Amino acid sequence: MGGYPTLLGQPMCRTPQELAAARPDVVVAGTPWDGAMGAAPGTRFGPRAIRTAEYTGARGGDWTHPVTRINPLAHLTIVDYGDVPIAHGAPEESFRRVRSVVAEIVQCGAIPVMLGGDHSVTWPHVQGLTQVHGKGSVGVVHLDAHADTWPLAPYEHTSHGSGMRQLIDGGDVGAEHFIQVGLRSSTDARTLDYMESHGMRSHWMAEIQDRGLPAVIDRAIAEALDGPDILFLSIDIDVCDPAHAPGTGAPEPGGITSLELLETVRRICHEVGIAGMDLVEVSPPYDSGPNITAILAHRVIYEALTGISMRRIGDLPGGYANPRPRSGPPSTGQGRA
Amino acid sequence: MGGYPTLLGQPMCRTPQELAAARPDVVVAGTPWDGAMGAAPGTRFGPRAIRTAEYTGARGGDWTHPVTRINPLAHLTIVDYGDVPIAHGAPEESFRRVRSVVAEIVQCGAIPVMLGGDHSVTWPHVQGLTQVHGKGSVGVVHLDAHADTWPLAPYEHTSHGSGMRQLIDGGDVGAEHFIQVGLRSSTDARTLDYMESHGMRSHWMAEIQDRGLPAVIDRAIAEALDGPDILFLSIDIDVCDPAHAPGTGAPEPGGITSLELLETVRRICHEVGIAGMDLVEVSPPYDSGPNITAILAHRVIYEALTGISMRRIGDLPGGYANPRPRSGPPSTGQGRA
Amino acid sequence: MGGYPTLLGQPMCRTPQELAAARPDVVVAGTPWDGAMGAAPGTRFGPRAIRTAEYTGARGGDWTHPVTRINPLAHLTIVDYGDVPIAHGAPEESFRRVRSVVAEIVQCGAIPVMLGGDHSVTWPHVQGLTQVHGKGSVGVVHLDAHADTWPLAPYEHTSHGSGMRQLIDGGDVGAEHFIQVGLRSSTDARTLDYMESHGMRSHWMAEIQDRGLPAVIDRAIAEALDGPDILFLSIDIDVCDPAHAPGTGAPEPGGITSLELLETVRRICHEVGIAGMDLVEVSPPYDSGPNITAILAHRVIYEALTGISMRRIGDLPGGYANPRPRSGPPSTGQGRA
Amino acid sequence: MGGYPTLLGQPMCRTPQELAAARPDVVVAGTPWDGAMGAAPGTRFGPRAIRTAEYTGARGGDWTHPVTRINPLAHLTIVDYGDVPIAHGAPEESFRRVRSVVAEIVQCGAIPVMLGGDHSVTWPHVQGLTQVHGKGSVGVVHLDAHADTWPLAPYEHTSHGSGMRQLIDGGDVGAEHFIQVGLRSSTDARTLDYMESHGMRSHWMAEIQDRGLPAVIDRAIAEALDGPDILFLSIDIDVCDPAHAPGTGAPEPGGITSLELLETVRRICHEVGIAGMDLVEVSPPYDSGPNITAILAHRVIYEALTGISMRRIGDLPGGYANPRPRSGPPSTGQGRA
Amino acid sequence: MGGYPTLLGQPMCRTPQELAAARPDVVVAGTPWDGAMGAAPGTRFGPRAIRTAEYTGARGGDWTHPVTRINPLAHLTIVDYGDVPIAHGAPEESFRRVRSVVAEIVQCGAIPVMLGGDHSVTWPHVQGLTQVHGKGSVGVVHLDAHADTWPLAPYEHTSHGSGMRQLIDGGDVGAEHFIQVGLRSSTDARTLDYMESHGMRSHWMAEIQDRGLPAVIDRAIAEALDGPDILFLSIDIDVCDPAHAPGTGAPEPGGITSLELLETVRRICHEVGIAGMDLVEVSPPYDSGPNITAILAHRVIYEALTGISMRRIGDLPGGYANPRPRSGPPSTGQGRA
Amino acid sequence: MGGYPTLLGQPMCRTPQELAAARPDVVVAGTPWDGAMGAAPGTRFGPRAIRTAEYTGARGGDWTHPVTRINPLAHLTIVDYGDVPIAHGAPEESFRRVRSVVAEIVQCGAIPVMLGGDHSVTWPHVQGLTQVHGKGSVGVVHLDAHADTWPLAPYEHTSHGSGMRQLIDGGDVGAEHFIQVGLRSSTDARTLDYMESHGMRSHWMAEIQDRGLPAVIDRAIAEALDGPDILFLSIDIDVCDPAHAPGTGAPEPGGITSLELLETVRRICHEVGIAGMDLVEVSPPYDSGPNITAILAHRVIYEALTGISMRRIGDLPGGYANPRPRSGPPSTGQGRA
Repeated sequence: MGGYPTLLGQPMCRTPQELAAARPDVVVAGTPWDGAMGAAPGTRFGPRAIRTAEYTGARGGDWTHPVTRINPLAHLTIVDYGDVPIAHGAPEESFRRVRSVVAEIVQCGAIPVMLGGDHSVTWPHVQGLTQVHGKGSVGVVHLDAHADTWPLAPYEHTSHGSGMRQLIDGGDVGAEHFIQVGLRSSTDARTLDYMESHGMRSHWMAEIQDRGLPAVIDRAIAEALDGPDILFLSIDIDVCDPAHAPGTGAPEPGGITSLELLETVRRICHEVGIAGMDLVEVSPPYDSGPNITAILAHRVIYEALTGISMRRIGDLPGGYANPRPRSGPPSTGQGRA
Repeated sequence: MGGYPTLLGQPMCRTPQELAAARPDVVVAGTPWDGAMGAAPGTRFGPRAIRTAEYTGARGGDWTHPVTRINPLAHLTIVDYGDVPIAHGAPEESFRRVRSVVAEIVQCGAIPVMLGGDHSVTWPHVQGLTQVHGKGSVGVVHLDAHADTWPLAPYEHTSHGSGMRQLIDGGDVGAEHFIQVGLRSSTDARTLDYMESHGMRSHWMAEIQDRGLPAVIDRAIAEALDGPDILFLSIDIDVCDPAHAPGTGAPEPGGITSLELLETVRRICHEVGIAGMDLVEVSPPYDSGPNITAILAHRVIYEALTGISMRRIGDLPGGYANPRPRSGPPSTGQGRA
Repeated sequence: MGGYPTLLGQPMCRTPQELAAARPDVVVAGTPWDGAMGAAPGTRFGPRAIRTAEYTGARGGDWTHPVTRINPLAHLTIVDYGDVPIAHGAPEESFRRVRSVVAEIVQCGAIPVMLGGDHSVTWPHVQGLTQVHGKGSVGVVHLDAHADTWPLAPYEHTSHGSGMRQLIDGGDVGAEHFIQVGLRSSTDARTLDYMESHGMRSHWMAEIQDRGLPAVIDRAIAEALDGPDILFLSIDIDVCDPAHAPGTGAPEPGGITSLELLETVRRICHEVGIAGMDLVEVSPPYDSGPNITAILAHRVIYEALTGISMRRIGDLPGGYANPRPRSGPPSTGQGRA
Repeated sequence: MGGYPTLLGQPMCRTPQELAAARPDVVVAGTPWDGAMGAAPGTRFGPRAIRTAEYTGARGGDWTHPVTRINPLAHLTIVDYGDVPIAHGAPEESFRRVRSVVAEIVQCGAIPVMLGGDHSVTWPHVQGLTQVHGKGSVGVVHLDAHADTWPLAPYEHTSHGSGMRQLIDGGDVGAEHFIQVGLRSSTDARTLDYMESHGMRSHWMAEIQDRGLPAVIDRAIAEALDGPDILFLSIDIDVCDPAHAPGTGAPEPGGITSLELLETVRRICHEVGIAGMDLVEVSPPYDSGPNITAILAHRVIYEALTGISMRRIGDLPGGYANPRPRSGPPSTGQGRA
Repeated sequence: MGGYPTLLGQPMCRTPQELAAARPDVVVAGTPWDGAMGAAPGTRFGPRAIRTAEYTGARGGDWTHPVTRINPLAHLTIVDYGDVPIAHGAPEESFRRVRSVVAEIVQCGAIPVMLGGDHSVTWPHVQGLTQVHGKGSVGVVHLDAHADTWPLAPYEHTSHGSGMRQLIDGGDVGAEHFIQVGLRSSTDARTLDYMESHGMRSHWMAEIQDRGLPAVIDRAIAEALDGPDILFLSIDIDVCDPAHAPGTGAPEPGGITSLELLETVRRICHEVGIAGMDLVEVSPPYDSGPNITAILAHRVIYEALTGISMRRIGDLPGGYANPRPRSGPPSTGQGRA
Repeated sequence: MGGYPTLLGQPMCRTPQELAAARPDVVVAGTPWDGAMGAAPGTRFGPRAIRTAEYTGARGGDWTHPVTRINPLAHLTIVDYGDVPIAHGAPEESFRRVRSVVAEIVQCGAIPVMLGGDHSVTWPHVQGLTQVHGKGSVGVVHLDAHADTWPLAPYEHTSHGSGMRQLIDGGDVGAEHFIQVGLRSSTDARTLDYMESHGMRSHWMAEIQDRGLPAVIDRAIAEALDGPDILFLSIDIDVCDPAHAPGTGAPEPGGITSLELLETVRRICHEVGIAGMDLVEVSPPYDSGPNITAILAHRVIYEALTGISMRRIGDLPGGYANPRPRSGPPSTGQGRA
């Protein structure tokens, strides 16, 4: 019987015991929190929408990737651990639970793949990692239109625009171990000063336009490897242009394309390796079509799983694992033309 | 009196007698079938939405093309033959009617331009052609995100992901006469094996990224000319990125732009020539704005008509008919600057 | 207390007296008229949606621009003058009021930034300028998918596709002082003849594809400087592809991206200088996501204000004011990699 | 072949010659004008949506009514005459065309059933009648939430809130021959004074609550029969509560149910007889579900046709034609229980 | 961990073994089939939407009913068995699977509560019952706007308007054991003849208006008890007015209210007792608000469970189980006033 | 110049000084907080949507009420004080600000009319009153589908389902001074026990069905007068059925109609008198049509203002102030029939 949607139809675990018994490589879980958004709420429905964004389920679990010809489900043990039970209106309690679940996954030896939620949840996501591996042990590659480095107001416990700063100010992540890609929103001068004076490595959209995204990613990967071995990849879907990702809380025009995001994620997971990731700010109430933003998010996770598989497999036959992942299989018509 | 929408305001025919009397060059008709979709249904409303997507009707029928300065309505006799009456829930009967209507149009000496419906309808569309011209006589240029070459289950009469395979397995079209452009979905390994072992010529999105679409189309046109003279052009609107075509049943991120599709269609119709075409998977219930996907589909048909006209006219004065249709009229401001 | 949305939170003026007392550099006002649309109405809700499209209000008014590092609010006195009270169904009366408000703003010495409404309102917008500065004194840079140069029917007072022609035929603007960028719709031959025989300078989308937008803008800026000193910038949001601007009345596939529009507007305002501008055809009832078209329009106004500021400041330290505005600040991570 | 939607699948006429040749009893035509709306536009799409609101087409034209067991299509010759070609932005010209079409229908001896459009179109609709039958010859039964008796501003040609007053002030209809049912909006005192001092017969919602709708309709029918023999029935869909008719331009809470409207329309057409009718203010862009407001409007027309048939047939066997049309056929299970 | 939505948070079963082990009183399962709809498809998403329509999950499973003060979860063992895996486009195979699942549930001794899907699924739902209990053993109480008694076309396997007739013609249910409530659509005369000549007991909306729904339900309950002991309750959500249930495939104006439906369902389950039920035609793509139709459907199931509990408990203290279930608990303020 | 929407076009005040200087009778202000919702968020957009829900602005401020013939704007000095600046994610700080604004309004001698927001804001709204008048001084009439008396979890500062309990447990309002009308949601037994043991006076929907709403309101008004003189009226828009108010966070089927709500509010404000009120849970992202829920809310406020005016005026000529406010003006047609 069907009807219980899990990501890519992978087995579900409902208890810590089931989780430990599954011996997973990757654990998908949701963090349906949107209590810290300043603009349009709705990202609490993100995890459910991403799970149900898969439109075909009848191929017997063969998800062969169109470029690399790898089926990540054949190389990884993946389980879906459901959603962290959120206490809406209570950020401290909610984030305590989130941290605890991430830490539990990490202690299983698995890579947590967390589905948000607004971007404030990256704070407890990464804290779940540092709770196990120690403060300062982790770097962050951060794809986003916004820097998320606003200072908190005195009365705020968290904010969807402050998650990265909370990680730095709390000592979880060194500022110089933040690599940001795709920034393009207006930002106040004091926040820009904070970012520069603390040594964050920010690649604005203007740089991407001048040099091209592949070159910027080359640099970002080099920077990511120039630091802690353990990396967390945080993807705000609004790094894409609103044309590609309209269903989000704070869309910012002038972003990258969906195709660029898919390749970037696969490259980073393949070439750098990740210890955890999250994908945030998918807001189903504002989505277009049959949920094109959730479908994009679903595919982003699939590209990440493909990249993780590529890294585990090592050198691929036929050059599929080359640094420019755009070069796919030889066009099958090419021998004839 | 207005109010009966036909495509581009062209005359309607309601009976086979009216159709024969009109002596048309091109016949537009709808196939509002979506009974074979695995994901979100709604493409049955596609033909009606495409017809009403024209937003201006007051220019006295002068639809001069902005690049080629050709008004296809002045060069072609076009009629709108309405929709095939579909029996929802009854694929055999419905497809029998569709085949029959296409054959009837072909026997009039006209080019059928069929509006879907889901992609399963390409099966009876092409069968209508081979019913008149013989099995094996037709090649197919197929623009799509998906290969549509899944095997049918034993209990299936058809499926929106199997139309192309049904044409090959039934002997209507030789596998090597299938030229596919834009593929990018995950596909199971056995289906990929089928495609390659049968010699289908597939141009994946990765190839388009590496070589650029114009070069891939050059090759695809060469391949199309390396086979049967009679060609059918099948366009799944999801070959475009969901940003450009959100109103579709199974959107796949990472596709081509609307501008690329418009030029590709005009080039193929101009440089290769077509004996029939269809445009499928426009799903109005999921469209954005004032139906931007239907508007795109409407414009795709218009570009096809322009390309058909260019081919009939032959060499155009001023070099408009050159193989790179992007070069438009000289910028009218250019003499001054 | 909040809750009265003004553009970028700038002060409102409610009477001519308040306006004069504010001594503004820039005055934002709305023209919520959509009575002349042939397709889908709804642009009357444009001004309100653009004002409320700002999603963050808590930075103390510091809107530092991510590329140029300029905060235009620190360099310009900007006020929001509300909306011209429109008499729906009564174009003469409504346009009389619009002209009068624009003239009033111009007489204050300020740059009017008018938010439409459908594109017919550019006629009274520019007339408000020529009412003060004289007929023939103003040039127009016009970004649009459509030429808006249809002739009026005898019984029409105005039409959303005729505004530019009314300005030319009425002697307000010389045809050779019209620089059009982005045109791509089908247009009847007589209208094309009018445009060419009158010497309008039109840059079609085909030229943009061949030469690239920056080169076309180079030429358009040269043309804009080859004429009257006073320039009006008229932006139809449908110059962007419907993927980027779905919420509009007459979307036309195949347009420029939001990123290209943002840069073009900043360049023109910086390099040429404007005496007035409008932004039209944003149709909130048809928008996607949390109003991505209105958010784009909001950002376009912000880029214009940034360009106006750049021009006032003169040479910027660090080369930010160079003619290719894409070159942003040096990537802050670049010293490390 | 299908695909050209006409109301209830009835034959279309495209020219005055076809219309005259059809010798119709009833002619359906659309008036897609919404240029006079003060609130949300969109009713121009009303006629198309009402025509396509029929969800089943496969019963061979047998539309037997569930209460009266009459199939109106068997008793009346009905044709669909398409839509009056509207000149958006030009009320004089548009209304001239509307008047002319209605007069043409009336001169054929048929009952015009006009589909709006906003409520300003009742002015030319009734004028089409008085153009043939003479001023003062017609009474109006008017179902609406709003009185539509505002004075025009000097610069207005028409307004969606003034149509009834224009008919009175122009001498087309005597004020005492206006019977209004369902009024409930706030109205300024001067307009209320006009209504009372001119002797309009207005049944406000408060009276309907006190006495019940059937009793109010008894009275309204008596009033309608106490005047000119020729009656025009004007139905603003917003007479229903917004729960039942959300897709309208100016919804007013606190209205009647859809069931009450259906019965009222059937009763009036049966017991009083009509020489013409219109149904206005259906706004598809704002509709819910699969267009429930358009479906209601479609059913209202069907009830009117049933009532017209009942009147032509005369006494029905089995008491179906009694003044309380609610009493339907004996429950078929009733003999058994 | 949360995130796997089941109905009312009840335990899920994923295999026949788990189902048998659970020893359930009631089994909820989905039939996401909409392949037989003539109008707007989308009901395949019904089961998922109904499961997620519960908006609060934090009360520790205490779902005390506001009228009867019964918590059905405390009296019944309920499991959620997921969805029958549907083969879209293949009605025979799909319905074979549906029948099999219903029979499996019945053989466990549990009451199947099936969530559709379009109304054609009632055919296999009831067949699943008769497969176990024998043809002719079951009666059907059928709440619907439509009689669903059209004849099939020769080429049809099923149709969303024929399910009841298929049950009768196939001998599964005697025509006189069909009790229909709420019918109001136009129906062709031959179908009406079929219904009457076969002795179906149909309560049309006109009877409900004349006698009131409680009296009609009194009669329907008497009729239901005058036949086979085993009853199946089939609820088409469109028995409600479209105001209350806009998210459905074929809305019909003039129906009952949501409150009337809730009470009717509770009464039937309490006073008659059911051996199975289904709830069909909820179409989430067309729903309003935060899915008000799915929320209504969720509550209908909850009322059914309450009624089933009331029947099991027998006489309730305080008179809660009286035949007029509207009399709720004494108003708690009433002793004071 | 227009364009700054205020409620009913009334003057705005932006500072405490402007507020004090205006000497208002009634002050409208917004509380755009939705941080405590368990279901679908979005009520933060309620105040803006309610203000802009007025669809006509051209009657010179004459808002004569259709039943009572009173124009409340002529009897009351009303100002719009904008919105309390909310700190999303920070309930303590946000509610501190809300309390402070309400207290400020009360100290001006005006009646605060607060627009929510989710229902948790009633807690600080009433606290603003008791801060001035003292704890225990105020009674609450509470119209709602939900009792909002859940206990808080230890980690919660507030919850949208606990506001009433917080007022009771904090001593602001005596439980016996709570009169609840319209309750119908499932509620856990412990919460029901709390309500009864504390002596809250709850009128469930079942009582309304048995006795009719007018009789229940008679009793509720008697109860309201049997306690403190100062009354606060709290209206959750979900007291209406979702058909009438779909745009809300937690719709509950089976509620009262919009017409019943409008009359109830006018009666309470007229017959009992209020010292403050709020209207909460309007959620524009989920609204239908041109925002029918916001339009209903706007009309509810208008009815409240009418009732407040009636109370100030005292006995009305012609019996308009009678206890059954349904009896409106004599039907103007009645003298003739």
